[in-house]
Amino acid sequence: MMRDRLMRALRGEPTDTTPIWLMRQAGRYLPGYRALRRQRSILEIAQSPSLAAEVTLEPLRRFDVDAAVVFADIALPFAGLGVDFRIEPGAGPVVPEPVRTDADVERLRPFDAEASVGFVGDTIRAFRAQETGRPIIGFSGAPFTLASYLIEGGASRELPETRRMLYSSPERFGRLLDRLTELAIGYLALQARAGAAALQLFDTWAGMLGPAEYGAFVAPRLRTLFAALAPLGRPTIYFSTGSTHLLDTLGTIGASAVSLDWRVPLDVARDRLGPGIALQGNLDPGALLGSPTALERSARRVLASVPTHRGHVFNLGHGVLPATDPDRVGALVDLVHAEGREVAA
Amino acid sequence: MMRDRLMRALRGEPTDTTPIWLMRQAGRYLPGYRALRRQRSILEIAQSPSLAAEVTLEPLRRFDVDAAVVFADIALPFAGLGVDFRIEPGAGPVVPEPVRTDADVERLRPFDAEASVGFVGDTIRAFRAQETGRPIIGFSGAPFTLASYLIEGGASRELPETRRMLYSSPERFGRLLDRLTELAIGYLALQARAGAAALQLFDTWAGMLGPAEYGAFVAPRLRTLFAALAPLGRPTIYFSTGSTHLLDTLGTIGASAVSLDWRVPLDVARDRLGPGIALQGNLDPGALLGSPTALERSARRVLASVPTHRGHVFNLGHGVLPATDPDRVGALVDLVHAEGREVAA
Repeated sequence: MMRDRLMRALRGEPTDTTPIWLMRQAGRYLPGYRALRRQRSILEIAQSPSLAAEVTLEPLRRFDVDAAVVFADIALPFAGLGVDFRIEPGAGPVVPEPVRTDADVERLRPFDAEASVGFVGDTIRAFRAQETGRPIIGFSGAPFTLASYLIEGGASRELPETRRMLYSSPERFGRLLDRLTELAIGYLALQARAGAAALQLFDTWAGMLGPAEYGAFVAPRLRTLFAALAPLGRPTIYFSTGSTHLLDTLGTIGASAVSLDWRVPLDVARDRLGPGIALQGNLDPGALLGSPTALERSARRVLASVPTHRGHVFNLGHGVLPATDPDRVGALVDLVHAEGREVAA
Repeated sequence: MMRDRLMRALRGEPTDTTPIWLMRQAGRYLPGYRALRRQRSILEIAQSPSLAAEVTLEPLRRFDVDAAVVFADIALPFAGLGVDFRIEPGAGPVVPEPVRTDADVERLRPFDAEASVGFVGDTIRAFRAQETGRPIIGFSGAPFTLASYLIEGGASRELPETRRMLYSSPERFGRLLDRLTELAIGYLALQARAGAAALQLFDTWAGMLGPAEYGAFVAPRLRTLFAALAPLGRPTIYFSTGSTHLLDTLGTIGASAVSLDWRVPLDVARDRLGPGIALQGNLDPGALLGSPTALERSARRVLASVPTHRGHVFNLGHGVLPATDPDRVGALVDLVHAEGREVAA
């Protein structure tokens, strides 16, 4: 029988306790993954459905998390646009020839999800064949965050080139976002067809924008995207960081759930987003590096910050940090299940 | 006669129009500075009062800005702690031996401002000897932001080691912040004695913290710091980025003015901070890279977002970007002076 706590919480239905999964729960802090990485690159693992499914499974074997999240990298679909990239351990995606001019944008190939990232669908199928009884979450980078990697040529603290394009060539920037909106729709639809039970959109760097620019450039594309995904019948989660100033808009983009970082207490978010949207988050991943006592205190503070537990999925505010002790993750999962209140309403 | 628009606005007194200066107005986008940098390193310039004063003056010769800001780097006082560092062009301060253990913190030398950064006072004196009729702003990094450079070993997007120390060794982290609070007080007092008319504290990365951690670790040290500076009689400005979620606390730290980035409209900030604190900001520096029309629109939006112009200093939300056209800066300064309303109240 499929464990349905996560899906019920995302839909705002009663649950027996608070569901929990962790961003990057399949990753660098786990010994199995680290052993595999000594032999294979991140890309080799992601492109091999059997290896990627094995990595996806590792946290489920160790912890009582309520969902798997497919092992992948948000840069994977860049190949389908004809954009070369590599993934540098620790630094993330690097795009040697950034997308900056009109010609660069025109040169992007039409995105064919099956042809370019069909292997991610195969990973989801390989995971499901293991019959863990737990749902698997598919994901994609969001248009703005994907654009920032393409424009900057990799991760960047302040996104200077992205903001330059936004202000100096708003039409070019809009066309690039449109292309990446199509990409994200196609990529997430592929994962839904392969059996992903829920779909998360990572807009990690969107908090860099002010409310006016976010409202003008980002929000309309997100509305298009979530409207296009609606017929698939999968709950959707929109993740961003440092986005307290965008909460009023985040309530209008059409996602089933909004995933927030530790910078905004969840009761504040609930007030600003309204009751119809589930919340995900928002423990600081740094809290997993502290003492067990400090971790418990921080986790209880998150649970207490949700005015009603209906529609709350416990998660971190960002990915698990590589230095994290796996035992601490197990303790967190058990604490949340023990302290997360039953919701019968 | 000294132009007093900036000082009056910081004190909430009537002004003839909105004052403006720009963070990093003396820097990489200016031809004089770039020519000098081909011959001298950033450290060589900063440590030479005559060169640093010349760099400080360049924007005043070109633009009608209402204040100078002393040319320096926030890493300069690290030398006074016995911490080696270098400044990498484009990347900022690099600390080859990060401060992470108890022993590392104990090893920090007592900070003697005159002995270690007396040359910054000399730069301020050399600037004042030019009799520009415009005030000069002194500055220091804030305890948290200085700590993040020392702990990470340089600039970092997500401050993983800083958050690790906060959660795993809160006492060690607190001791480090205490040492850096003393440093900032001593460094700013030195600049005030040399004739700095106002003092800005840069807490660029403080927005990384959630409200509880900011309230527990950062805010108490800021209150100590601003209380210690009060007898100097200089208006103080607290700068941070991505700190919408901290506004309620920012109203309580004791700074004369709070400088915000483009992520929070100034009328929202005014409501949260209360009427007794001046506002500084908050144009996205990216707007200086766009078309003249788009720049005008963005600048007018900032001016319109201040419910009353009393107590507003126009600035960017972060430093001038290196790719900025100096003529665009001149146009912005003139626009703000022309459109900034007289405040007679």
